[in-house]
Amino acid sequence: MTKPLEFYFDFSSTYGYLGSHLIDALAAKHGREVIWKPILLGAAFKATGLPPLPTIPLKGDYAFRDVLRCARYYGIAYRHPSVFPISTVAPARAVWWMQGQDRAKAKALARALYDAYFQKDINISNPSDTVRVAASIGVDPATLEADLNDQAVKDKLRTEVDAAIARGVFGSPMVFVDDEPFWGVDRFDHIDRWLREGGF
Amino acid sequence: MTKPLEFYFDFSSTYGYLGSHLIDALAAKHGREVIWKPILLGAAFKATGLPPLPTIPLKGDYAFRDVLRCARYYGIAYRHPSVFPISTVAPARAVWWMQGQDRAKAKALARALYDAYFQKDINISNPSDTVRVAASIGVDPATLEADLNDQAVKDKLRTEVDAAIARGVFGSPMVFVDDEPFWGVDRFDHIDRWLREGGF
Repeated sequence: MTKPLEFYFDFSSTYGYLGSHLIDALAAKHGREVIWKPILLGAAFKATGLPPLPTIPLKGDYAFRDVLRCARYYGIAYRHPSVFPISTVAPARAVWWMQGQDRAKAKALARALYDAYFQKDINISNPSDTVRVAASIGVDPATLEADLNDQAVKDKLRTEVDAAIARGVFGSPMVFVDDEPFWGVDRFDHIDRWLREGGF
Repeated sequence: MTKPLEFYFDFSSTYGYLGSHLIDALAAKHGREVIWKPILLGAAFKATGLPPLPTIPLKGDYAFRDVLRCARYYGIAYRHPSVFPISTVAPARAVWWMQGQDRAKAKALARALYDAYFQKDINISNPSDTVRVAASIGVDPATLEADLNDQAVKDKLRTEVDAAIARGVFGSPMVFVDDEPFWGVDRFDHIDRWLREGGF
């Protein structure tokens, strides 16, 4: 039995969003599952000392142009959100909360949240918007709304973010194939070959 | 007549080195020439406020692992230099100096310098090593040695670095296809499609 790929991402990451549309098909090609692991890049930035990409002179402007071009390259719908970047505590907690109950549904929720933010310009940093998106895929809104502030849910996200950083996660998307880290949607071709050849 | 691609790079850039082994074949596939433009990333870092990649916690370690893996991915010889990163004023000046005389020879010199550093562990930050590498491809060492400190040569490099940053260059390699910027050897597939389709 092979280990699932681990897909680390932040809901405010443009390249993470592109990766969310590609990662499962890539893994499936090689008979692998994927576990989706939302994290908070803000905590990673504290570890690296780096500022958020959109705020970096020259590079931020380039990245904005590049992500639009990458979306066209991969044929993925993309609409730049009017509020960007955002805090992603609410959607990340929601996905970890769902993960504890139903892994497939957690993935469906993550996809719905990403698409809400990067296709429909819904500001999922608002807990109420996260809950509304979850309701649209059949999650009970009252239960989720209450549990978003549950201490166990808060702790789960914090623990997962700390574990990710301890493992070396510094950006989004970041994929672990067994113990091999790949950063960026532009490394998905490398993952493809790695899975096909068992490393290279 | 089509414009040559512009290939910006720093001699201390691992990904720039990988790009140096790929860019001409990529351009030639589409009937395009390439002008090689060595720059100084230190000046770009001043503009972006970013620290050099190897010094960044988590990301620096990952980048070291990634560049070895990328070299295997592309099938390019790579030996991590024992002194890294280095100041690249001497090799950059040498290439601009040669550019003014013979563009093909300037490119051959740039290739020889990159390979000396990333294959043979020759520390090209030393002007004497840069001159020695140049001599190995038929450049007169005494003339180059003297001209490396010529004010016009110094000014040429400074002017080109300033122009690159004014144009938005913040990393290495960075390729302009007409006015479209592509950062990173991982965007060479995008350049390929851009050249084939005339944009996308």
